[in-house]
Amino acid sequence: MYISYPSRFETYGAVKIYELSKVYSLFAIKAEWKPGLYNIPNFNELEKTAEKTVIVVPSRNEDPMVLEGVLKAIPVYSPIILVSASTQAPLNMYSVETDIAKTLYKVTGRPTIIVHQRDPVIAEELGPHIPGILDEDGLVRYGKGEGLLISVLLADGLNAENIGFIDADNYIPGAVLEYTLIYYTILNMSESDYRMVRLSWGYKAWSSTDLYFRRMGRASTIVNNVLNKILSLRRRAETDIVKTSNSGEHAMSVKLAKEISFAGGYAVETQELVSLLEACYIGVEDGMCPALPGNIEIYQVETRNPHIHSEKGESHVIEMIIESLSTIYHSKLVDSKGKALVIDTLMDLAYEGEPPPPLKYSIPSLNGKDFLDKVLGESKTSVAYGV
Amino acid sequence: MYISYPSRFETYGAVKIYELSKVYSLFAIKAEWKPGLYNIPNFNELEKTAEKTVIVVPSRNEDPMVLEGVLKAIPVYSPIILVSASTQAPLNMYSVETDIAKTLYKVTGRPTIIVHQRDPVIAEELGPHIPGILDEDGLVRYGKGEGLLISVLLADGLNAENIGFIDADNYIPGAVLEYTLIYYTILNMSESDYRMVRLSWGYKAWSSTDLYFRRMGRASTIVNNVLNKILSLRRRAETDIVKTSNSGEHAMSVKLAKEISFAGGYAVETQELVSLLEACYIGVEDGMCPALPGNIEIYQVETRNPHIHSEKGESHVIEMIIESLSTIYHSKLVDSKGKALVIDTLMDLAYEGEPPPPLKYSIPSLNGKDFLDKVLGESKTSVAYGV
Repeated sequence: MYISYPSRFETYGAVKIYELSKVYSLFAIKAEWKPGLYNIPNFNELEKTAEKTVIVVPSRNEDPMVLEGVLKAIPVYSPIILVSASTQAPLNMYSVETDIAKTLYKVTGRPTIIVHQRDPVIAEELGPHIPGILDEDGLVRYGKGEGLLISVLLADGLNAENIGFIDADNYIPGAVLEYTLIYYTILNMSESDYRMVRLSWGYKAWSSTDLYFRRMGRASTIVNNVLNKILSLRRRAETDIVKTSNSGEHAMSVKLAKEISFAGGYAVETQELVSLLEACYIGVEDGMCPALPGNIEIYQVETRNPHIHSEKGESHVIEMIIESLSTIYHSKLVDSKGKALVIDTLMDLAYEGEPPPPLKYSIPSLNGKDFLDKVLGESKTSVAYGV
Repeated sequence: MYISYPSRFETYGAVKIYELSKVYSLFAIKAEWKPGLYNIPNFNELEKTAEKTVIVVPSRNEDPMVLEGVLKAIPVYSPIILVSASTQAPLNMYSVETDIAKTLYKVTGRPTIIVHQRDPVIAEELGPHIPGILDEDGLVRYGKGEGLLISVLLADGLNAENIGFIDADNYIPGAVLEYTLIYYTILNMSESDYRMVRLSWGYKAWSSTDLYFRRMGRASTIVNNVLNKILSLRRRAETDIVKTSNSGEHAMSVKLAKEISFAGGYAVETQELVSLLEACYIGVEDGMCPALPGNIEIYQVETRNPHIHSEKGESHVIEMIIESLSTIYHSKLVDSKGKALVIDTLMDLAYEGEPPPPLKYSIPSLNGKDFLDKVLGESKTSVAYGV
């Protein structure tokens, strides 16, 4: 894969945000090095990086055909963690997912872990260490952010070096393959221990409507814009560097993931950026940044495939925007001017007043291996193959 | 890529038609060998096979964005031949295509040839050797089959070992990558000098309508059915082995391509099968089969990606069916019972009587290198980069 080498980055304290790169060729392993491009230098490097990178697929009642395509597209070298929040009764969608993953394991033999977010064993392990993560049922809350958090601990238990996320509602297996190849390429390129790559879809469309290729989703457009304005106000020079505020498809070193504070629900992707900027930009003088004396590197890559996913409806988009903006509003990034900007933006969406503060969780200082062993050893719902 | 190893094939004279294989994993180069699966054993094998395989993209006024995605998806090791039948005036779509290919060449450096099917130099070279290929303008006829025929001669001129075809109207670059990886995997696996792989789309949909994933196109359903019945009648045992009668996505050894008689227009893909069965099944006793004492191996693979392409309309489908069935009707495969079956099938489509005989061309015994040099040396419209 040839990815354009980003010609510049902006520095916010110890956070380097790179300009958007583009994919110039989907498959170019080992091909000649060229100025202005990055490419994995040989197949062994790709294989090594892939083996060290766990791919996490969060799922909640997705179409089984679609989930199957996603799993088949992930290169066989990477272990898979499927974190499900699907129904278990009356129709047991979770058992369908488990069977899809198991069937694929029988073919590929790759390590595969399937956990249910509402597994009581997980609640028992995490509840005492992560304030607020359990709901009134005493189980881990539903929500994408909560699922990703669980997966970070499991990936740490597998001793993985990197973790990459792929949404389960992707109709195009070939796009999933592109995402993973981008992850490998960038994670291989970055020299920082604290590295992240976030994807911007070249085009997006929904499976349920006439195919119309949009350049950017509505949530991304609005939240990118607010985040860029907040950064502009701080540095007193305009910027449009952030293109991936709501990027579901992203990957990072596990070392970085363990330093991030995760938000609940759909605020998770924006909160990652906010959390890093709070610690390593605003808080850098106060010794809040774990990456020092190094840097945090955030790469952004535009994919070549269109992203075709299931349509979740208008109210889902609005909800996602409110949750995302709330992480900015309730952060150390904003002063009164910044807060006013968020309120104004929400007003345009017919939402009045302050957004509710997001649920936020720090990764607990659990031993990942112990957590993994406990879950796999005691759970009746979560299972692993080849681990 | 893990592809299921076909567990059986049927033999028609010297033609072996393998049962449909399926893609179990999009990316598994070098991964452990497993019974029942095939996989390219290491990256060097993939690279070597890819370098020896020319990928041909026939194009006629396709959306430039779509064509660009197709070209970016073809692994950089394979030379590309773009055969265009696009308009040159008033809007010069051909120059847009040339510029897309040139831009990509600047990035990848791979050998790239762009020829126009209506190039007078090509007409001058082919006219005397291929009866009927020129139209009243003295130029090579419009038609997909005619374009593919030109590309076979050019690939031979490049001294390529294999040639693979990818339609230019594919909205999913990731699907194109899958097609090429299937080509490499099967061409690497086959031990015959006369090898072919034909793809069946796992799902198909159109870019212009609600996304609905069909299992099989209408033309394929009808033409596969007729071809299978014809074979059943001959062998006196029913078969449904043929799944890829109209497979636009297919690849083969150049050695095999040079022995096939190509049909004009959209009959080309069906005619390839008909032509091979005529020579090496019906004609095998009469010494008509060039592969002897070897076999012709025809593999069929079902892709995992959906195929999303532009909608060409109902009349296009009917036309394609008529053209395809005519190659069967006017072949040595059918007796009076077979002919009646074709007539009946056409009647169901409201077409009365005999279909017109297809245009058919044998590959002339030209020196491919001389043809390539002539075209590149003398043409004002066709160009090459890195050749």
